[in-house]
Amino acid sequence: MSTFKAKVFVTLKPSILDPQGRTVERALSHLDHGNVSGVRVGKYIELTLSGSRAEVEAQLKDITENVLSNPVMEDARWELSEQQGEELVGA
Amino acid sequence: MSTFKAKVFVTLKPSILDPQGRTVERALSHLDHGNVSGVRVGKYIELTLSGSRAEVEAQLKDITENVLSNPVMEDARWELSEQQGEELVGA
Repeated sequence: MSTFKAKVFVTLKPSILDPQGRTVERALSHLDHGNVSGVRVGKYIELTLSGSRAEVEAQLKDITENVLSNPVMEDARWELSEQQGEELVGA
Repeated sequence: MSTFKAKVFVTLKPSILDPQGRTVERALSHLDHGNVSGVRVGKYIELTLSGSRAEVEAQLKDITENVLSNPVMEDARWELSEQQGEELVGA
């Protein structure tokens, strides 16, 4: 039984309009950052899970796909690292 | 003049309460994920910048600290990678 730190990244699918990102982009352009484009605002979620690695991986996949993101509009990927341990990357 | 992809991660400082994270944690616990703790919800922002590497780095630092995050309550870090190029990590 170990403790794992997970990071989940949720982004809108490229085909979905992102009004929040557009607003940030326009604000930046007014602040003399006219060379900035393609701003997309997503979510970044950190969580701690305890259990065996296999259990935690399956659980994190389920949580990412079914709780933290809406698969119709969003893409999600996750990273899992054992506390002070090696890293694992998934999508 | 190159094009760079930037990723910015904004998280609440550890001492700041995160009601959104608490809500997710409680929801997960009701969904039989009682081994999940320490849920924190932050922002993940992707942007594209054009210019020389030195300019873009300075600009991204400024944008991250002054536009995309509130340094009183939030921590922010960024990653910069040239389109199909090597990666640079900052905080």
